[in-house]
Amino acid sequence: MGVVISLDENKKPKASVKPLVDLTKADMDLVNKLILSKAGSDVEMIPEVAEHLISSGGKRLRPMLTIAAANMLGYKGDGHIQLATSVEFMHTATLLHDDVVDESDLRRGKSTARMIWGNQASVLVGDFLLGQAFKMMVDVGSIDALDVLSTSACVIAEGEVLQLSVAKNMETTEDDYLQVIRAKTAALFSAAAEVGPIIAESSKAERDALKSFGMNLGLAFQMIDDALDYGGSADDLGKNTGDDFREGKITLPVILAYRRGDDEERLFWKSAIEDGKTDDAALARATELIAKYSGIEDTIARAEHYSSMARDALAPLPSSPEKAALLEVVDFCLARVN
Amino acid sequence: MGVVISLDENKKPKASVKPLVDLTKADMDLVNKLILSKAGSDVEMIPEVAEHLISSGGKRLRPMLTIAAANMLGYKGDGHIQLATSVEFMHTATLLHDDVVDESDLRRGKSTARMIWGNQASVLVGDFLLGQAFKMMVDVGSIDALDVLSTSACVIAEGEVLQLSVAKNMETTEDDYLQVIRAKTAALFSAAAEVGPIIAESSKAERDALKSFGMNLGLAFQMIDDALDYGGSADDLGKNTGDDFREGKITLPVILAYRRGDDEERLFWKSAIEDGKTDDAALARATELIAKYSGIEDTIARAEHYSSMARDALAPLPSSPEKAALLEVVDFCLARVN
Repeated sequence: MGVVISLDENKKPKASVKPLVDLTKADMDLVNKLILSKAGSDVEMIPEVAEHLISSGGKRLRPMLTIAAANMLGYKGDGHIQLATSVEFMHTATLLHDDVVDESDLRRGKSTARMIWGNQASVLVGDFLLGQAFKMMVDVGSIDALDVLSTSACVIAEGEVLQLSVAKNMETTEDDYLQVIRAKTAALFSAAAEVGPIIAESSKAERDALKSFGMNLGLAFQMIDDALDYGGSADDLGKNTGDDFREGKITLPVILAYRRGDDEERLFWKSAIEDGKTDDAALARATELIAKYSGIEDTIARAEHYSSMARDALAPLPSSPEKAALLEVVDFCLARVN
Repeated sequence: MGVVISLDENKKPKASVKPLVDLTKADMDLVNKLILSKAGSDVEMIPEVAEHLISSGGKRLRPMLTIAAANMLGYKGDGHIQLATSVEFMHTATLLHDDVVDESDLRRGKSTARMIWGNQASVLVGDFLLGQAFKMMVDVGSIDALDVLSTSACVIAEGEVLQLSVAKNMETTEDDYLQVIRAKTAALFSAAAEVGPIIAESSKAERDALKSFGMNLGLAFQMIDDALDYGGSADDLGKNTGDDFREGKITLPVILAYRRGDDEERLFWKSAIEDGKTDDAALARATELIAKYSGIEDTIARAEHYSSMARDALAPLPSSPEKAALLEVVDFCLARVN
């Protein structure tokens, strides 16, 4: 999690998030205003902590999904602004709690809130933002949207606990991994996309299309993110390459390299991930083993599978600028590693 | 927080929570079943952590308020069961997060979840229970109940952050203290009571009566709890006397003793609360100074003020067994220290 979408113009990526950014700009300006206003509180520490994270450079992909989906389906009210803001607050609350859980020092190249204000403030400000998210959803008044978003809040928390219980265990299977990323990342992408058609009172088919699009985009997105952790640089990512390795996270490149390795290599992975021997030499060896067994290429191949599903999910919907922009985001996700 | 209502029969307290327990028993059996079912998950650690806390002997005063209020006003459906369970889950989630924030080792005489499963599990299982609470409220489908409960979730988190920012600062005023306990304790009592008339579709006057009753009962309850921390025993309370002192919490008995003390005594309080010199000798001195300045008696007197407000709030409602039981709970709260 805590992903940054690199927009370095010099790299001329094949696909870009720019059409989506441009199409949603007017509404996202309102979302950004609402974010700042709802993160406000007379209790000074709350806006301080919230703004630290909010201003730290994420591209707000999740709320853009809500805005684009609602607009694509002809929604004319302003409930999508509040729902998109709720989605971003749920994400921000998760990041605050994640940093405590992972004992992270850096996020997007900046000190984490817990390093500046302590674990306590991170836990409690996260709770506050989650409360604000629910209040905004309640203000919108759509029980279906409340249902989808509150369900995703449970699923996300369940996924995080699952991740905790499989952590540092090299017998984690690819299916376990899929279950974790489906819950901790893809569920919110899916909910963010699905509340668009819900608020637009679209048909069940349209709702299902966006829900599936979000879920599969989220899976591909997280897989690429996990691949980048063994291949990008801190500059590109705003996080340090090898963070997942040092935290003992079992991601797909590691699962593939471990399962395809020989006994001696498996012992290396166990000593690294299970016993925490994750110094720079170990990271170099891990990266080498992942390369030896095509761990990055095959993680990308798996991500391409879910990307195809995301594209096909949108296929039945009529052409529109939003649809084209959403499809380009799928390509952009993959282009990050190519 | 983390208060246990002592029901030791040998003490023959003047007032008892028993009439409320008896009146709500049939519904509370359903609440307890729903609690166990909704704390369930395929992710093993979730029911383990949740049941550790759920089974640890709280008397479930908050959900009983919801049940009694709904029944008193003639509600015939089953939505109050889900709302009462939501209220208890919100409370349980707060306790899990509080233990992490306070770095507590014991709660109700048992090891805290964070001591057994770690801070990570406490944060994440708390998030899961909060998510389940919102899902249940959404299932009930009352936007007004959702509004009241989601607002209280924000207020509670805000109160906890406020408590954090005034922690270990002896210049905390009685007004600051009131603001903290209004948010972190009384807001949920108030919401728990108010959702009863909401689901029963009662008049605004009845809703306001229960809301005010819950708020003032909550204030009195927390004040008595704070007095007990300098006067009860670990057996009575299921927590250790002096816990608040050792954690550097600024509660009303401390505020009164500090403000009424001389310069030398104020230096003692600063060294204890601000610099953490809170060994047994310091606790003995603190208890002595609180006694010297009537810190306990006057905390009780303040609590009596809010108790009167709670009683008067219910006065306009017609007589009923539930009303009598709720009024007796107010007396019982105070009787805990007499």
